[in-house]
Amino acid sequence: MQLSKGVEWAAHSVALMAALPQDAGLSREVLAEYHEVPAAYLAKHLQALSKAGIVTATRGAQGGYRLARAPSEISLWDITAAVDGVLPMFRCTEIRQKGPCALLASECKLACPIAAAFLAAEAAWRKSLASITIADIAVSITQSSSQAKLRRVMAWVQANQTRRD
Amino acid sequence: MQLSKGVEWAAHSVALMAALPQDAGLSREVLAEYHEVPAAYLAKHLQALSKAGIVTATRGAQGGYRLARAPSEISLWDITAAVDGVLPMFRCTEIRQKGPCALLASECKLACPIAAAFLAAEAAWRKSLASITIADIAVSITQSSSQAKLRRVMAWVQANQTRRD
Repeated sequence: MQLSKGVEWAAHSVALMAALPQDAGLSREVLAEYHEVPAAYLAKHLQALSKAGIVTATRGAQGGYRLARAPSEISLWDITAAVDGVLPMFRCTEIRQKGPCALLASECKLACPIAAAFLAAEAAWRKSLASITIADIAVSITQSSSQAKLRRVMAWVQANQTRRD
Repeated sequence: MQLSKGVEWAAHSVALMAALPQDAGLSREVLAEYHEVPAAYLAKHLQALSKAGIVTATRGAQGGYRLARAPSEISLWDITAAVDGVLPMFRCTEIRQKGPCALLASECKLACPIAAAFLAAEAAWRKSLASITIADIAVSITQSSSQAKLRRVMAWVQANQTRRD
């Protein structure tokens, strides 16, 4: 069971957008180039992020993607849900209502203990992802990066950003 | 991102085996009939459970599957890992080592903060599943079942079990 590769791309793209000055954006081509991923696939995930209200897309020559809200208001769960969806990992087919000893639907008002346990585990996973924001990630990246690396990224962002002045 | 359907089948099959008397087993056909699932697919998952040391398979006319260890020693994580594997959900392709501002591999001794956060969330999921055993599930099922349902299951198990006397 694996998350879409797009979750990694989207998380890194959103983290990079957190380094943008106000009113600046990054085009999908530039975001794809920075992460060395296919622009067409990344576009699909950027659209999902836009639909979820995580990023804003502006069209045109000066258009680009930027964050739609503060990095501290965007969690890794928000990004995961936008890109990979919110279907439960565990597929409960109400197996207890099948076979020779089947329960009636009316006897199944409470969740099956097996499904309930899997859902609880999934809630722990979501809660953990929801507790980490892009602001946290940006701080971690900054603290673990050399001055030279940070300068390189900021110079690249400045050279490649679109601006709506 | 979804777990294999086999995880549900395997968890229910293991829970049913917890109701077996000593030295009794259930054939894969009988387990498939009880849960109304395809015997050939269930067989694949039962083999995975056997390989993981969760169930024991005995061949022959009196053969069948039974638990290889106490229900309190089998967690939902054990079953999930056996059936669905232990690959991380989050696929880190070391995206930070790509593109125009790539880090060198030597600068990436610590996990990327994004990958680290996803791995922490995954650890919370595994820990939650590891904390629930088949003994817990059996108690929950018993406590939430009517006397009539439990009698029906026990009678069915008795009529369909194989015995090695």
